[in-house]
Amino acid sequence: MSASRPDVDRQARSAVPVDALAASAADLLGRLRARAPRVHCITNTVVTAFTANALLAIGAVPSMTTDPAEIGAFVGSADGLLVNLGTCDDERRRAIRIAVAAANAAARPWVLDPVMVERAPPRLALARDLLAERPAIVRANATEVATLGGGHPDPTAALLGLGARVVACTGARDRVDAASRTVELAAGHPLMARVTGVGCVASALATAFAAVADDPFLAAVTALTCLGLAGESGGARAGGPGSFEPALLDALHALDPSDLERELPRVVDAARATSRGGR
Amino acid sequence: MSASRPDVDRQARSAVPVDALAASAADLLGRLRARAPRVHCITNTVVTAFTANALLAIGAVPSMTTDPAEIGAFVGSADGLLVNLGTCDDERRRAIRIAVAAANAAARPWVLDPVMVERAPPRLALARDLLAERPAIVRANATEVATLGGGHPDPTAALLGLGARVVACTGARDRVDAASRTVELAAGHPLMARVTGVGCVASALATAFAAVADDPFLAAVTALTCLGLAGESGGARAGGPGSFEPALLDALHALDPSDLERELPRVVDAARATSRGGR
Amino acid sequence: MSASRPDVDRQARSAVPVDALAASAADLLGRLRARAPRVHCITNTVVTAFTANALLAIGAVPSMTTDPAEIGAFVGSADGLLVNLGTCDDERRRAIRIAVAAANAAARPWVLDPVMVERAPPRLALARDLLAERPAIVRANATEVATLGGGHPDPTAALLGLGARVVACTGARDRVDAASRTVELAAGHPLMARVTGVGCVASALATAFAAVADDPFLAAVTALTCLGLAGESGGARAGGPGSFEPALLDALHALDPSDLERELPRVVDAARATSRGGR
Repeated sequence: MSASRPDVDRQARSAVPVDALAASAADLLGRLRARAPRVHCITNTVVTAFTANALLAIGAVPSMTTDPAEIGAFVGSADGLLVNLGTCDDERRRAIRIAVAAANAAARPWVLDPVMVERAPPRLALARDLLAERPAIVRANATEVATLGGGHPDPTAALLGLGARVVACTGARDRVDAASRTVELAAGHPLMARVTGVGCVASALATAFAAVADDPFLAAVTALTCLGLAGESGGARAGGPGSFEPALLDALHALDPSDLERELPRVVDAARATSRGGR
Repeated sequence: MSASRPDVDRQARSAVPVDALAASAADLLGRLRARAPRVHCITNTVVTAFTANALLAIGAVPSMTTDPAEIGAFVGSADGLLVNLGTCDDERRRAIRIAVAAANAAARPWVLDPVMVERAPPRLALARDLLAERPAIVRANATEVATLGGGHPDPTAALLGLGARVVACTGARDRVDAASRTVELAAGHPLMARVTGVGCVASALATAFAAVADDPFLAAVTALTCLGLAGESGGARAGGPGSFEPALLDALHALDPSDLERELPRVVDAARATSRGGR
Repeated sequence: MSASRPDVDRQARSAVPVDALAASAADLLGRLRARAPRVHCITNTVVTAFTANALLAIGAVPSMTTDPAEIGAFVGSADGLLVNLGTCDDERRRAIRIAVAAANAAARPWVLDPVMVERAPPRLALARDLLAERPAIVRANATEVATLGGGHPDPTAALLGLGARVVACTGARDRVDAASRTVELAAGHPLMARVTGVGCVASALATAFAAVADDPFLAAVTALTCLGLAGESGGARAGGPGSFEPALLDALHALDPSDLERELPRVVDAARATSRGGR
C-alpha cells in the first residue's frame, strides 16, 4: 500500500491465520491494560462522555480538548489521536490540523472517523484532505467508506491507495483491510445500532489499541472484536437501548485477554458463515 | 390562527374527541417506526447524548452539527428540525438562522424549545424573533411560555398569534394548543423532573413525530403521550434518577402503537380529574 | 489566610472536631434540599450531562451556558458558580472572566476546578490568574494541586496563599484545607476512577453546598463526604463502570442528612487509619 498506488485491489489482500491473530489480540489487550495509553480525542459533542467512558473501561486515559491553543501540548503528550468529524466547526477544523501535524511529528498513530461524510460536502472535502495525512486507521460504515472512496468500485482499495494504512468498515459484519491482509468479523448485538456513538466508540478503541501496537491492522481487529464481544454480553443483559449502554461499558471493563483468544476464531467463522449466506 | 391575529383566545379552542386522537396517535407511532425520519437537532451541549438516544429509541435518526458551514446541507436532507436555545452562542445563533431558513424553504417542520428563556434577555429576544418564522410547535414549560408571551394574560394565545402553529406546555400536567383545538394530558413520573434534558427530549420527540405527520397538533400530543407513558414505565423500574434515564429509554424503545391507543384516553381523563381538583 | 500571606503553612492548620463537623454537614445537606440553589456551571463538554444530573440528584438546579452574551445574566441570578477548565476555548475563557466578575460582584461563591492543568501551559496560566480572583474552593487532584502550586514544597499552602479560601484535594484519600483547619476523608469506591467526570462532579457538588453555606470549608467537606458515601453505595450495587454512574446518581439522590451525621466520623477515622499506614 502506498499513496502512489491507488490501484491496490481486493484480490491482493489475503486472509490472515486466525489462531495467531487471536493470540496477538489477546496480548494486545494485556499490553493496553498494562500501559494505560493516553488517547486524545477530537470528537463530536454527542458522544464525548460515552467515548471517554469506553476508553476508561478498556483501560486507556482519555483527554478531549478541541482548543487550538491547547491541543498541540495535549497531543504531544498523548500516545494516540482520534479525529472524529461529527459536529465539526471552525475551531475543530483548526484543532484537527494542529493535532494531526503534532501526532505525525511525534510518530503517534491517529485514527480518522469520517462520521456522516455523505451528508455535507465540506465535511467530505476535509475527510479527503485528511486521508493524505496517512491515518493509521480509517473506521467508518459502508456508506461513509463508499462516499470517501468517491465512486471507486472497490472503495476500500481507494482509501488504502489515498493514504489510509488500514480501513475498518463496520456494520452487521465488520471488515478490516490493510494493503496485503483482510479479515471479516461478525460479533455484536442489534442494540448497538440503537445507541448513539457506538461507531464513534469503535474508532476510539481502535485508537487506544493502535497507541500500544506496532501494527494498526491488529489494533483495528482487536478493537472491533472487543466491542463486538462486549456488545454480545451487554445485549444479553440489557432490557433495551437505555440499559444497553451501561451494560456495554461494564462488559468492556470485564473483558479478559483470554476472552479474545477464545472467541476471535468464532467471530471470524461467523463472518464466513454469513458471507457464504450472501448476507 | 394567523400572525395577524394576536387575539386568538382560549375559548375558541375546543377539546378534541379522545378516541379518534388515540387511534391517530397510534397510527403515527407506527408511521414513525416505518419511515425512520431524519431529525436534525440544534440543541444544548448538556443533552446531546440523551436527545440522540431518545430519538433512536423511538425510531428516528438524529444528526446534530451546529456548524454554519455544514448545517444547510444537513437540514436540507432531514425530515424535521429541532431548535433548542440552551447553551446558545454565536455559532449556534448563525446556525439557527440558516437551519430555520432551510427547513422553511424545504417545507420541513421545525420545533422551537426556548429553554430558560426567562434567565437572559438576549435569549428571549432571539426566541421572539424565531416565533415569527412559524415553528410547527413551541414546546416549553409554563415559565417559558409566560415569558415568551410577554405578560399577555393568555400567553399561549399570544404565542399562537405570533406565529407558533402549536404550543405544547409541559409540567405536572401537559397542555397542547392549536388555533382551534386543545387537550390536556397527565402522564409521567416525578423523576422526570430530576433528570436533565427530559423537556428537551420532549421537544425532540415532537420534532420526530412532526416529521412524519401532516398535523403538528397530533405530533405534539403523540410525543408527550409517548414520553409520559415511558416515564411511568421507567419510573416504576428505577431506583432513582440515575437508573431512571436508561429505564426511560428502554421504555420509549418498547412502546407499541397499541399502548398509545389503549392509554391515551386514560391520560386525558387523568388530566381532567386533576384539573377539576384545581391542581 | 490572605493573598499577602504566601507562607501559610501546613502546621498552622489544625484538625477539626469531628462530631460537630458531622452535625454541621448534615444540617447543610438539609439546607441544600430546602433551598434548591441555582448553580451555574462553566464546565467541559465531556461531563455536562453527568454534572447536571448530579446537581439535580443532590437537590440543586443547574444551568450551563458558556455564551459571553448570556452568562452575566445567568450568573447574576444564580447562587453559585463552577469554573472547570476542561475543554477550555476562547469562548469559555471570555465567559469565565465575565462569570467570575459577576459572581464576585454579587458576593456569590465560586469554585475552581483546574482539570489536567499539568497538560497545557495556557491552561496553567489561566488557572494561576483565576486563583487571584479568590475562589471559595479549589477542587483538584494531587497532580493538579502540585502543578498549580508551582513546585512549592507545600502546594496547598501556596494555593491558600495565592487566593484560594479552601483547597479540596481528592484521591484515594481526600484532604480539605483552609487557612487554619484541615481534615482528611477516606470514603468512596475504586470505580470512581473508571468513570469520566467524577472529579468534576465533586467540584459541582462543592459549588452547590458553598451556595447555601457561610463556610466553604464545611461546603467542601460535605460535598466530598456525600460523593464518597454515594460512591460506596453505588459501587456496592454496580456491575462495572457503566452501571456505576447511574447507581452513583441514585445514591446521591437517596442520601439523607442522617447518613452524613452517622458516617462522617467513620470516614475521618478511615483516613486516619490509612494515613498511619503510610498509604
